[in-house]
Amino acid sequence: MVDVIAFDGDDTLWHNETVFSLTQEKFRDLLCAYAPQAEIDAALLATETRNLRLFGYGIKGFTLSMIESAIELTRGRVSATDIHTMIEAGKDMLEHPVELLDGVRETVEWAARDRRAMVITKGDLFDQESKLARSGLADLLWKVEIVSEKDPDTYRRILEIHEIDPGGFLMVGNSVKSDILPVLEAGGRAVHIPYEITWAHEHVEPDPAATFPTLEHIRQLPELVKDGLP
Amino acid sequence: MVDVIAFDGDDTLWHNETVFSLTQEKFRDLLCAYAPQAEIDAALLATETRNLRLFGYGIKGFTLSMIESAIELTRGRVSATDIHTMIEAGKDMLEHPVELLDGVRETVEWAARDRRAMVITKGDLFDQESKLARSGLADLLWKVEIVSEKDPDTYRRILEIHEIDPGGFLMVGNSVKSDILPVLEAGGRAVHIPYEITWAHEHVEPDPAATFPTLEHIRQLPELVKDGLP
Repeated sequence: MVDVIAFDGDDTLWHNETVFSLTQEKFRDLLCAYAPQAEIDAALLATETRNLRLFGYGIKGFTLSMIESAIELTRGRVSATDIHTMIEAGKDMLEHPVELLDGVRETVEWAARDRRAMVITKGDLFDQESKLARSGLADLLWKVEIVSEKDPDTYRRILEIHEIDPGGFLMVGNSVKSDILPVLEAGGRAVHIPYEITWAHEHVEPDPAATFPTLEHIRQLPELVKDGLP
Repeated sequence: MVDVIAFDGDDTLWHNETVFSLTQEKFRDLLCAYAPQAEIDAALLATETRNLRLFGYGIKGFTLSMIESAIELTRGRVSATDIHTMIEAGKDMLEHPVELLDGVRETVEWAARDRRAMVITKGDLFDQESKLARSGLADLLWKVEIVSEKDPDTYRRILEIHEIDPGGFLMVGNSVKSDILPVLEAGGRAVHIPYEITWAHEHVEPDPAATFPTLEHIRQLPELVKDGLP
């Protein structure tokens, strides 16, 4: 019954939030003389959220938001050397090796065998293409969609373009907000596999009306699909 | 015989390089105490070119390159206030109104009437989507492709995905390097309409073997197509 299995990229197929977290640690260390840790984190999140409207998701926007936050938090006293360190940290993130989560390779191979496997991922076009190329998964994928936002209309458009029957479409991802709820609204099905960290911006309060299966590990996906989704 | 007309976005449909140029002028003014104008321009272009591999095209990468260049050119003496001004300049670019070039609206309407009109544009996904939405042209377009690089393989992939016959495909753009030569190599046809400014990175030496029509103004396109492309 499930004909197309679509995987989210960041924190579903490969580690992403851990890379952001490590950079955010460096950012805190650079600014520790100016403000307590919680204040630094709150300021960065506020800047990121405010800038999303202009920057969209991704590392380049995050790097600009780090610099902006640093200037604000230090009231202009941050040194050019420290700002240079932030740019280098952004570049390190862009060059960071793509590390697949455990079990991903086998699960995508399984999905591609008797069904069509695709990736629907959000973020910078250039960066996401580069990650996909480096993931070694590209040859297994029927389609790849890199989108700027994951809302119900995005999923409806993708289903339409690729002539996918919503009833046979299953999305697999770590974000309830981006990978689960909008897919259910577009008539598809979705499986939630939480990652160890959730970016504050992606956090949603659980909606008791929305029901979807949650797995601990991507390796459990074939069995869930074989047994029939609830 | 021409069935699909594809337009480049930046500097073909809407002004773009002029917006970059204005920002670059502000950048020069900020740094004029540290280096002569030509040196500032050269340093920025060198940084941009070096960072393309990681940042791709677009305003966010340009803004990061401005900051990096400023730190290098001033040997770390640039103030946080000036860096803040650069971030604000980047945001202004992202919010800059989309100004269509003269004759664009009518020409795209003409292209959409008896043929299929599309846009193939390069840059940040989020920014390009926003420009398209603000251009008021979206309803006229059969397809939109936002790509990270315009090489022959990119065009081959687009022709294949949308089942376009290369012989009936015409690309219209301001960059010989991105809009003309790779299209000819992919078996399509192309018309060059130079913009008033060409970004140094897009400059190519003319190849005497490549022949393609050049128009002064997009308004001349219908007549060229009607008379049959050379």
